[in-house]
Amino acid sequence: MTQAEAAPAWRTTRWFNAPAPLALADLRGRVVVVCAFQMLCPGCVSQGLPQAQRVAQTFRPEDVAVIGLHTVFEHHAAMTPTSLEAFLHEYRITFPVGVDEPDGDGLPKTMRAYDMQGTPTTLLIDREGRLRRHAFGHLSDLQLGAEIMALIGERPQPLTSIGAGAGSVCISKG
Amino acid sequence: MTQAEAAPAWRTTRWFNAPAPLALADLRGRVVVVCAFQMLCPGCVSQGLPQAQRVAQTFRPEDVAVIGLHTVFEHHAAMTPTSLEAFLHEYRITFPVGVDEPDGDGLPKTMRAYDMQGTPTTLLIDREGRLRRHAFGHLSDLQLGAEIMALIGERPQPLTSIGAGAGSVCISKG
Amino acid sequence: MTQAEAAPAWRTTRWFNAPAPLALADLRGRVVVVCAFQMLCPGCVSQGLPQAQRVAQTFRPEDVAVIGLHTVFEHHAAMTPTSLEAFLHEYRITFPVGVDEPDGDGLPKTMRAYDMQGTPTTLLIDREGRLRRHAFGHLSDLQLGAEIMALIGERPQPLTSIGAGAGSVCISKG
Amino acid sequence: MTQAEAAPAWRTTRWFNAPAPLALADLRGRVVVVCAFQMLCPGCVSQGLPQAQRVAQTFRPEDVAVIGLHTVFEHHAAMTPTSLEAFLHEYRITFPVGVDEPDGDGLPKTMRAYDMQGTPTTLLIDREGRLRRHAFGHLSDLQLGAEIMALIGERPQPLTSIGAGAGSVCISKG
Repeated sequence: MTQAEAAPAWRTTRWFNAPAPLALADLRGRVVVVCAFQMLCPGCVSQGLPQAQRVAQTFRPEDVAVIGLHTVFEHHAAMTPTSLEAFLHEYRITFPVGVDEPDGDGLPKTMRAYDMQGTPTTLLIDREGRLRRHAFGHLSDLQLGAEIMALIGERPQPLTSIGAGAGSVCISKG
Repeated sequence: MTQAEAAPAWRTTRWFNAPAPLALADLRGRVVVVCAFQMLCPGCVSQGLPQAQRVAQTFRPEDVAVIGLHTVFEHHAAMTPTSLEAFLHEYRITFPVGVDEPDGDGLPKTMRAYDMQGTPTTLLIDREGRLRRHAFGHLSDLQLGAEIMALIGERPQPLTSIGAGAGSVCISKG
Repeated sequence: MTQAEAAPAWRTTRWFNAPAPLALADLRGRVVVVCAFQMLCPGCVSQGLPQAQRVAQTFRPEDVAVIGLHTVFEHHAAMTPTSLEAFLHEYRITFPVGVDEPDGDGLPKTMRAYDMQGTPTTLLIDREGRLRRHAFGHLSDLQLGAEIMALIGERPQPLTSIGAGAGSVCISKG
Repeated sequence: MTQAEAAPAWRTTRWFNAPAPLALADLRGRVVVVCAFQMLCPGCVSQGLPQAQRVAQTFRPEDVAVIGLHTVFEHHAAMTPTSLEAFLHEYRITFPVGVDEPDGDGLPKTMRAYDMQGTPTTLLIDREGRLRRHAFGHLSDLQLGAEIMALIGERPQPLTSIGAGAGSVCISKG
């Protein structure tokens, strides 16, 4: 694997359900499951987020980190952090959720860095911080469970093996 | 039936999916199905509103009017009309939706007038404007379909039979 | 309404969940909801029969009689009364179920008399024994609840008004 | 791992969806997912069998073999091979299904050999023929997908490592 496959760093402005902002690098060593969503996206509410909650309940936290990313690319005034906070409370979402950094009226910065096509999008990032799966839309639970376990089963390599430059990939793609 | 059973008038500040504000009195002669909801109430999103949409698709508009009422009683800053408008667009809700008039941080005015306990709440109002059913929580489709049809089947009586004072009930309870 | 619309009598060989064979005429005065099914028909198991159970739980027995009719038109050796009895026990179906009288390898007799196209089929028969609805496939609960209630609301007329010849219609069509 | 953990051989009288009887030993090298079911068990029809079909559609046949096992322990006269054959056709089940060998009116032989408590039961057998999971009732798709993938990821060891005596375990327990 090459450096180009390292997952871009996140660009976030705020976090919920986390004591401090979370960087992807902080999660090195664990498999990371990112659920990119918008609180007013029906498919996110009915499928993507419940699936992410099931993932968080099924796997051990030391193996898998589930992260929500609020990637608002439409109706910006309707999906503010104030609305998101109430949404997370009402839907009892307890995993950490970061707010993707807005970039005017267009795609927010992390969404653009990952070249996401819409929401919900599921990302799987391996123990060494490499993006291994990028799925727009629905993934079945069987498929997702299998893919997560395949990554859990990989033996982590020394951290030096992928270098520290992951973030720069984000900039070059953005 | 007595005047006391007339459904209170609605107190609303704004309407969506309607060319002009809708008063209950405007719907006299039709059965009115009111779905009182909050856009961040999970049970409203997964059950109450989809059921109201099914009602709107099943019955003839000349027999049944389906009305949404946004009765925000918590997280007021998170469920503004701006957020509601985007929500209605994303969830493709096409029946008229009124915003219940806020009353500070507590229950909005129509919600209080009807003594609602929470959301979702379903109200059935007969052809003569009388409140015939008030259900908090889930009503099965079979039960709801039967109750609506029972009201459709009632022969409307002359309008004079219930008087014009329905709205005053709301004020006295409010 | 004319005599031609009277529902044909049933031709059955055996009954379950009933102390004695049930004739349609025995149910005069009540709305009759017939669920024609085969125990190995997936749509009957997942939709038709659960819906019939919901009907039996929703309406009062004095208003509505729910009847199952096992109309086997394929895999005859696989869906014997012995298998049906175990099926009804395992699926906890408690309303009366009649076995439609076989006619060789083809359509059983009641199925042919009603000109059914397959299973599941729902029949609605009014308080006076007239066939008012014949639906092959899925009926939504809202629609079905409304149609049943419309028939409940009809004032029964004197029995003499439709004559005693309902069964003869079955013979002429068969 | 020891020989004691080898999965007992199956005792079957008939196979559907297979050109010839299938022995567990024939599947050595692949992960085997066994769905033990009864055709009149509601939980098997609504959950166990559809899940097995999803497994068959999700994983590659060279990695995973999905096998149905008809373990009739009640209503024997109602669930004959004749009825089963029609059931499999109507439910479009295309993976191989073996009929567990009856043992009078009690538990059939394979069911007893595996000490199953009822249906549906899911068994996971690894590439080397060892029983690795025995679950009575519901397993979530996420969990099952993960467990299957964990077994897929195991490097098969030489066949000689577990010996040929797996079948004898069955006999000694039976």
